[in-house]
This record gives sequence, structure tokens and C-alpha cells, in this order.
Amino acid sequence: MLLGGDWGTTNLRLFRFDAKGQVIAKRERPLGVMQVGPGDFEGVLTEVAGDWLEDGDPVLLSGMVGSRNGWVEAPYLPCPAGLDDVASALIRAPSQRPDIFIVPGLSYGPAATPTDVMRGEETESFGAIKPDRVRKLIVAPGTHSKWTLLDKARVTSFTTYMTGELYGLLRAHSIFSRMLEGDAPDPAAFQLGLEASVRDPDLLSALFSTRTHGLFGVVAAESLAAYISGLLIGSEVAAGLRRFDVKDVTVIADDVVAANYLQAFKFFGVTAVTVLDNRAAAARGLWRLAQIAFPKMRTV
Amino acid sequence: MLLGGDWGTTNLRLFRFDAKGQVIAKRERPLGVMQVGPGDFEGVLTEVAGDWLEDGDPVLLSGMVGSRNGWVEAPYLPCPAGLDDVASALIRAPSQRPDIFIVPGLSYGPAATPTDVMRGEETESFGAIKPDRVRKLIVAPGTHSKWTLLDKARVTSFTTYMTGELYGLLRAHSIFSRMLEGDAPDPAAFQLGLEASVRDPDLLSALFSTRTHGLFGVVAAESLAAYISGLLIGSEVAAGLRRFDVKDVTVIADDVVAANYLQAFKFFGVTAVTVLDNRAAAARGLWRLAQIAFPKMRTV
Repeated sequence: MLLGGDWGTTNLRLFRFDAKGQVIAKRERPLGVMQVGPGDFEGVLTEVAGDWLEDGDPVLLSGMVGSRNGWVEAPYLPCPAGLDDVASALIRAPSQRPDIFIVPGLSYGPAATPTDVMRGEETESFGAIKPDRVRKLIVAPGTHSKWTLLDKARVTSFTTYMTGELYGLLRAHSIFSRMLEGDAPDPAAFQLGLEASVRDPDLLSALFSTRTHGLFGVVAAESLAAYISGLLIGSEVAAGLRRFDVKDVTVIADDVVAANYLQAFKFFGVTAVTVLDNRAAAARGLWRLAQIAFPKMRTV
Repeated sequence: MLLGGDWGTTNLRLFRFDAKGQVIAKRERPLGVMQVGPGDFEGVLTEVAGDWLEDGDPVLLSGMVGSRNGWVEAPYLPCPAGLDDVASALIRAPSQRPDIFIVPGLSYGPAATPTDVMRGEETESFGAIKPDRVRKLIVAPGTHSKWTLLDKARVTSFTTYMTGELYGLLRAHSIFSRMLEGDAPDPAAFQLGLEASVRDPDLLSALFSTRTHGLFGVVAAESLAAYISGLLIGSEVAAGLRRFDVKDVTVIADDVVAANYLQAFKFFGVTAVTVLDNRAAAARGLWRLAQIAFPKMRTV
């Protein structure tokens, strides 16, 4: 049936589906778009899943594989854009095989100069919704955390928060890097960070409390990374809730990240939070798009 | 007379004064506290200004040289703290010479667990004020930008913004690093960044506009660094003006940085801005502290 792939900046995740849309096999490699040279995408796909490609089934790939540095650029589709719109705008990848398609990303804002973009999260979001649900907020944390508002399987707006990227920069390259030790989860220190983000809503100054908390032993060196995480995620969630004004939310993330966001949403009084594994959401979204794009599959 | 030094994280700046407090000679070396090993501070000082040390005049050093990783730790003095308080709390540096002293930094917040600290900017601030001025806001931009409120030569409160550090991280190590080219001043792109900081006051999302502006050609690659600078400084100045509610301000900075802050303050409607060179402010502050700490100097 279908071979689906979530091909992002740092990882390639492949899903093999059965005729009912169940994932019967998965493969994951650290061969993201950053690691693959121009012209090498087909080679990498064949290397990782050549045995799955033999039967000529369609292949559908989402994520940064559709960016300028990917296999082929799949132009952003402007919002609002629904599941049908995206399924109708797949781009065929240059290949000897006729059946490899790329999911376009979405843009938000003026048509010529969008103010926000996503690639991959639209597919995860389509996989996370109940398609008849009137209004749904999906939060997909990551290097660039995406808050996506959907109305009946149609993305109406979204906003990107650079939470994960700033966390990585501060951990690895900042004045804090030499103060902190490790990045083990620490709900108590994370909570202190959440509280700090509310006490001082100005992120540029709030972040400096990491320095004083470390200097004066308020937060131990092993807990400073969790404190920074709490500060940043607190800042993100406060901003997102101001912008979207939604009472319930679905978080698409793995367990560790989801635990942080659950704690943050609870802190801000949002208790109606559903967690969905990011791989499961991507697979479900790819299947839903494929059902529309490749109608012959349905008949099986 | 006096040998003064502003010995920070990355640079050593030495000033030789005449009997009236005029700087008659300056030396600057990229030998900051980061570059000097423990126990090597006297050696570096002798290497750079041994000829100035021969006459046995007092030496007064401010900045990170008084931190844990410096020559000797000079404990933070809690705010409010005036020129007299700081001059009375100098710490003698371990040395064969009896006359080398370190200026303590300042802390703000609870005595046991301060929420903010500075080292060096207290000396620059003391050099920037008219000592009888009732209320004065001093802004010292840098890796960690310090906003310091003084009342008659007494620091009453201050706040640190990590503006310069975030700018450096985003330029060198972020997703933007490969999009941007150079960091030439660009007032028009800087202005776009200021405007963006007001349009979206949530820094985590506002920063992502750098990506879309680059992708869709709103800001050229050579201007993206100036755009990021405008966004960050806009975020800082907006936050600082909310916190301190002051109508006029003195900015302590070199010409390039000062031009950015002048543009930002003007954008936010603050036109009563005085600019003072950061080296001149440090030298003047060291002289003022020395006049109190070493009264014999006065008689000359």
C-alpha cells in the first residue's frame, strides 16, 4: 500500500502501512535534510527502504524534504488550507519512479510575503484532529514550536515560537553553558522557570535570572537546564494562550517533551490537554492525505 | 597618580591619570578575564603596564576581575549602594604590592539570593552621572545590557537584559546563521526590526519573522543581522521603558552601538538621550571612586 515518510531537518522517519492504514513497520535514521546532499535523496531513500519500494506502491513524504534544500521545493500553500487542498497540491519528486510525492508546507500572512511558515507540522496536525471538530488547537513543540488552529480539517492560522532553538543555543553556547551540568528532567526546577516567566514576562531580562540562580545556589547546576526550559516554555505557552484563547489543546510530542508541556499548561490553568505521539500523528496525517491523493488505494 | 583599569570578560583597558583626573594615557588589550589563567593577573598587568607601575601609585580595577574567576572575588554589594559605599568596600588584590584594589560589583534583590548582579557597570554609571542629579537612568548596552537607576550617586535598582548575548548566539549558531551575510549597520533594516518588536511583543515568535523575511526577500541577506538587532534592542528598550518609566537617559556605549540605541529610543518616543563613550565613563568612575578611597591623592 503506502510508504509514508516524515523527512525533517535532522531525521528520516518511514512508515509502511497496510491496506487499512495501520503502520505495520517503521524505520528511523538520523539522515535529515541537513545530512543529505543535493541529488542524494533518492539514494538515501533506497538505501533505507529499498526493500519496501520494490512493489511500486506510492510514496508520500512530508517535512523539510520539500524545502529549497530538500529533494524538490514544494511551494508553501497559503492558509486557510484544508486537508483536501494539501492533498491536491502534492509535488512529484524528480525520480525514475513516477509515484514519489512531497507534501507542501503552509504559509500564513500576505500571499507575497508570508509572516510564518511550516513544513511537516501541517501533516502532523491533520493526523491529530477529528476531521469534523469545529475548532482545534494543536501544539507541536520542537526546535520551532508550532501552534496551529484548525477548523474542520482546515488550518486557519498558526504561529511559530523558537523555543527549542533558543534552549539549544543557551545550553550549548551561552554564559550558562559552563554553569549547568546535564539536562535531566527536573519538574521542580522546571516549575521555578515557569514561575519566573510569569514574574518577569520580559524574556531578555527573565533569562538572566538563570545566572543569579546559579551564582547564589537557588538552582543547582544539574537543574539549571530544566530551569531554562521552564522559563522558555512558560514564555511560549503564555504567549500562545494570549494569542489563541483556546481552552483545550492537543500536544504532539514524545513523552519527555510532552511532560514539560503538560506541566506548563497545567500551570497556566489549561487542564484539557491531549497528548499524541509525534510519530503517530505524522503517520496518521500521511495516511489521510494519501487516501485523498491516491484514490485507487481506497479500493483495496 | 592613579592607574585605573576596566578589566572585563574579554578586554583589559588601562587608564593613566594625571593629578587632576585627566586620562593622559590609555592601553587596551584583548586579555579579558576569560583569557587570563588563575594566578596570572599580576603577571598580565605587569606585562601590559609594568612601566606605569614603577612609581608606586595606587591601582584600581573594576569589572569581572573581581569575579570568582578573576584576580580575587570582591563580594557583591547590595543595592541601594552609593559611590561612598562602593569606595569603602574595595578589596585588596593578593600581590606583593600593597596598593592594588578591586571594585566590588553590585547585587539587587534579597540579600541571600539576589536576582540581578553587575560588575563594572556600577563604575561606568558613577562616571556617567552628575552626582547631585536626583534621578538618572543609565543604559550600558553590551553582552548583558544593564539599565541602572541612580538617585544622587546612589544605585537604587538595575535590570539586566541579555540582548547582546542573544544577538551573538542567533548570528553565529542559529538557523539564521546560514541565511545572513555580514553584520554591517543598516538603519532601515534595524527600523523594520524595531517595528516588528512592537507588532509582536512575544520575542519567541517575533524572532521567527527573521526566517520568513529572509525566505521571501523582505530583508536582504546582508541586512538580516541588523533586522535581528532591531528586534532584540526594540524588545529590550520597550521592556526597560515599561519598567523604569524615565523620560531621559544616558547611554554608555561606543559609536556603533550608541547609534542603534539612539534610533531605538527615538522610535519609542524618548528623545532626551545623552551618549557617553564607555571607556570615558569607566575612567571617570574609577577616578571618582579613587578620590574617595585614596584621600591622599586629593592633596596633590
